[in-house]
Amino acid sequence: MPHIKLPEGIPGIVGPMVAYPETARPLNELAEALLRGPSSLTSAERELIATFVSSGNECFFCTQTHAAAAREHYGPQREIVDQVIRDREGAPVSEKLRALLVIAEKVRRDGRLVQPEDVARAREAGADDRAIHDAVLIAAAFCMYNRYVEGLATWAPRDQEMYDRTGVRLARDGYLTAVDRRREEAGVEA
Amino acid sequence: MPHIKLPEGIPGIVGPMVAYPETARPLNELAEALLRGPSSLTSAERELIATFVSSGNECFFCTQTHAAAAREHYGPQREIVDQVIRDREGAPVSEKLRALLVIAEKVRRDGRLVQPEDVARAREAGADDRAIHDAVLIAAAFCMYNRYVEGLATWAPRDQEMYDRTGVRLARDGYLTAVDRRREEAGVEA
Repeated sequence: MPHIKLPEGIPGIVGPMVAYPETARPLNELAEALLRGPSSLTSAERELIATFVSSGNECFFCTQTHAAAAREHYGPQREIVDQVIRDREGAPVSEKLRALLVIAEKVRRDGRLVQPEDVARAREAGADDRAIHDAVLIAAAFCMYNRYVEGLATWAPRDQEMYDRTGVRLARDGYLTAVDRRREEAGVEA
Repeated sequence: MPHIKLPEGIPGIVGPMVAYPETARPLNELAEALLRGPSSLTSAERELIATFVSSGNECFFCTQTHAAAAREHYGPQREIVDQVIRDREGAPVSEKLRALLVIAEKVRRDGRLVQPEDVARAREAGADDRAIHDAVLIAAAFCMYNRYVEGLATWAPRDQEMYDRTGVRLARDGYLTAVDRRREEAGVEA
């Protein structure tokens, strides 16, 4: 049961976002800019970093949601997403993405762990400043989203089809309309 | 030295915010809503929670910045801020704020650590749902801001007067104009 009163039938982060719209707006605008805005990384790569960090923080709702979005973005290469969740160190990703995942994992634990060598390795594999910036901020931001979801003990359904449907929609329509859509479906008034 | 190229002479989180404006906007709007928007907590209490979490994460720039803002908001009671930084468990705060700081500390470590007893204790001391929500999201958000600052190895000046000036301005004018102001002062073009 959630620690505070939240609208019923609305899973994960969407519950507190419906109940507290003043903070929901910038939270969704940040996700939209970070995962779908201008970047030298694809949305597939960025959703995969979000999934990887959420998996490291053991946040079931965020891991399943962003894994589903990443699968949609990856299309025929979608199996990479589950390989990263199952074996976070050993999954067969590009050298660039592997180096960015090392940085993301360090940021997840403590930002001060990131060393110049980690950044040099990412650059040698083709990452530019923008990619390094985005990997750091995605990892940092999911340390927030994961804690918001878990710190309020929100509801994380075990219904895989629900996550799959959400992933299709997030990949297609993004984050700016996601809360309104979910609120309307659940019949909760604005 | 920062891990990526950032405008010179601009400290802490403001450097990457100037360089990456698409994400800076929602990051500042989130800070404005969380720390200064509608809440059952005062801005002083919310800036103190932000300071407490940043101090727990040992982020010098964020701790000094938000401590300075909290001191401005507390006015004559400003010494409470340094008491909380010096002795995070023992500082003489209200029972309500103490219970919210316990929740914030658990969120900082791992959101799943927050127990129904922690929330019950906060309620008994007068915290409503909004206060509990805001304490959780402030703690979660500063786990992001702290990691963004540290994960990019941004510049954290040791100039206490700089932080004091920033605190006065943040308490008076808020977060929405803070980046533009700093950019103009440093003579960096938009």
